[in-house]
Amino acid sequence: MRRTEGSRRVKIVVVGSIAIDSIKSPYGSADSIPGGSATYFSIAASHLCNEIGVVAAVGTDFPYTDLFHARGIDTSGMEIIEGKTFRWGGRYEEDNPNLAITEYTSLNVFQGFRPNLPNPYRDAEYLFLANIDPSLQKDVLAQMKMPKIVGLDTMDFWIERKRDELFELFDMVDMIFLNEEEAKRITGEKSTIKALRAIEGNRAIVVKRGEYGSITSFKGTIFCLPAYPVEMAVDPTGAGDSFAGGVIGYIASIGGGMEGIRESEMKRAVAYGTIMASFCIESFGPKRLMEISREDIKRRLEEFEDMISLGRNP
Amino acid sequence: MRRTEGSRRVKIVVVGSIAIDSIKSPYGSADSIPGGSATYFSIAASHLCNEIGVVAAVGTDFPYTDLFHARGIDTSGMEIIEGKTFRWGGRYEEDNPNLAITEYTSLNVFQGFRPNLPNPYRDAEYLFLANIDPSLQKDVLAQMKMPKIVGLDTMDFWIERKRDELFELFDMVDMIFLNEEEAKRITGEKSTIKALRAIEGNRAIVVKRGEYGSITSFKGTIFCLPAYPVEMAVDPTGAGDSFAGGVIGYIASIGGGMEGIRESEMKRAVAYGTIMASFCIESFGPKRLMEISREDIKRRLEEFEDMISLGRNP
Repeated sequence: MRRTEGSRRVKIVVVGSIAIDSIKSPYGSADSIPGGSATYFSIAASHLCNEIGVVAAVGTDFPYTDLFHARGIDTSGMEIIEGKTFRWGGRYEEDNPNLAITEYTSLNVFQGFRPNLPNPYRDAEYLFLANIDPSLQKDVLAQMKMPKIVGLDTMDFWIERKRDELFELFDMVDMIFLNEEEAKRITGEKSTIKALRAIEGNRAIVVKRGEYGSITSFKGTIFCLPAYPVEMAVDPTGAGDSFAGGVIGYIASIGGGMEGIRESEMKRAVAYGTIMASFCIESFGPKRLMEISREDIKRRLEEFEDMISLGRNP
Repeated sequence: MRRTEGSRRVKIVVVGSIAIDSIKSPYGSADSIPGGSATYFSIAASHLCNEIGVVAAVGTDFPYTDLFHARGIDTSGMEIIEGKTFRWGGRYEEDNPNLAITEYTSLNVFQGFRPNLPNPYRDAEYLFLANIDPSLQKDVLAQMKMPKIVGLDTMDFWIERKRDELFELFDMVDMIFLNEEEAKRITGEKSTIKALRAIEGNRAIVVKRGEYGSITSFKGTIFCLPAYPVEMAVDPTGAGDSFAGGVIGYIASIGGGMEGIRESEMKRAVAYGTIMASFCIESFGPKRLMEISREDIKRRLEEFEDMISLGRNP
């Protein structure tokens, strides 16, 4: 095991997967493209905050490290392990862009991955625990000195297999990102609002609804925002992680901890998440997310704000 | 056949069903309560416009005419036919409040209903063709002199059985209200945005997404608004018609035809629809819709506006 060189202090640390994906959708297909939760999260967040470090494992065959560098992302937490990179193959049907149908998963070097944070990362103010084994998420959290805000994502696989550990983690983090189905399954509630009420506690819970946007519980208030309407969901892979990258990237850009965040700031953060997810799905892989400029983001955020503004009361 | 007395000029005419419903939901049940598309539409719209006339058929057993009068709704277009009122029984499961499961339908006097508009109704500026047989909808439209705006609702039943007639009607109206599934089925498109693009033409198409809000195509622009988050969808019956009542009621309150409506006004109309639907589902039948005050509506609209406002850009 070795690391890419030159560890530096960062503001946001993300731990998650880096993968090589092969994807089919009604709009075409793409083979062996960059993927993984840490990839999407960090690229999205890099548009809002330029001090991001990635903790993940790749194989010696991984050809996309330059992608991270092109976005100014620190890869000294990326472990290069002898062997092959995690590979995922999946497809989407037109009638349900929210549902990824897995065709194969080869964990490869990801299998035995035990995250070990470079020393300068341990001082980071913001931490995002992307969807991996809750035991590893806990491990990473324990290595951090005193993060101001910790975000967490998970998936049904862990909800079924490591429920207790997941609940323990819930109490240790500040922002939980869940799909609607996951929120319902975790709580046993059939209504999303009830599910939110059941787990909200002193945290922000952001429930992702795919093409229907999101519903968030924040300091006792529940708010819904629609998705930005995209004509073609070319490849929905990574939308959730790009969403989280937008949220936490924006929060990091304004600074401070949970106490300091106002509701309007949280809403704006979710709006950034919404916009990042909308760019993400416009191309296969993180291609579109890599291309967009500050101007593109500003313009789409304004369009979104305009779309949900009811205009002046006559 | 006879009519209730005293026909007067009205601003909005709605033609649809008036029914006696029996409903079960995870929150309880209610027997023999007022229902039907014309009922929900007119009560919702009556909060925004006080000149509404209802065209529908009821049996001699219908005990709820006072409900309409209590909201200032003209019932001279309501035909009282010897026999029993249309009855519908249905239920909702907690995991899908958008789906009404029909337990029985007894058309009764609704079966042979041929709408015949009182003369003063024929001058109305706004017409809403609630979900009934497209042949009857066309019939009613032909009786109108020169309505400024015509709204239309339909359901999968007619999409399957009277597709051509429905498409003909589409070209004769200004606002089409559809459920998401219906919009997809009509166009054969699997994506809602594509479905909107396929039928938008020179009309407003409002696609109702239940707990996920709405997506609207208006003068070439597509906008999404979320639903107002309601903790308990006690009885979703009538939500779609209350929604349309809010939209058309607001449009009638500002006056004018399609050309004059600005995008911000259309959005505000959809917001009123959203709010009316949210009140509708908070009780069995139109009970809550009957109770609400101008102040309740104003407050909830402000809350909704606040919910989707991202606050000042820092």
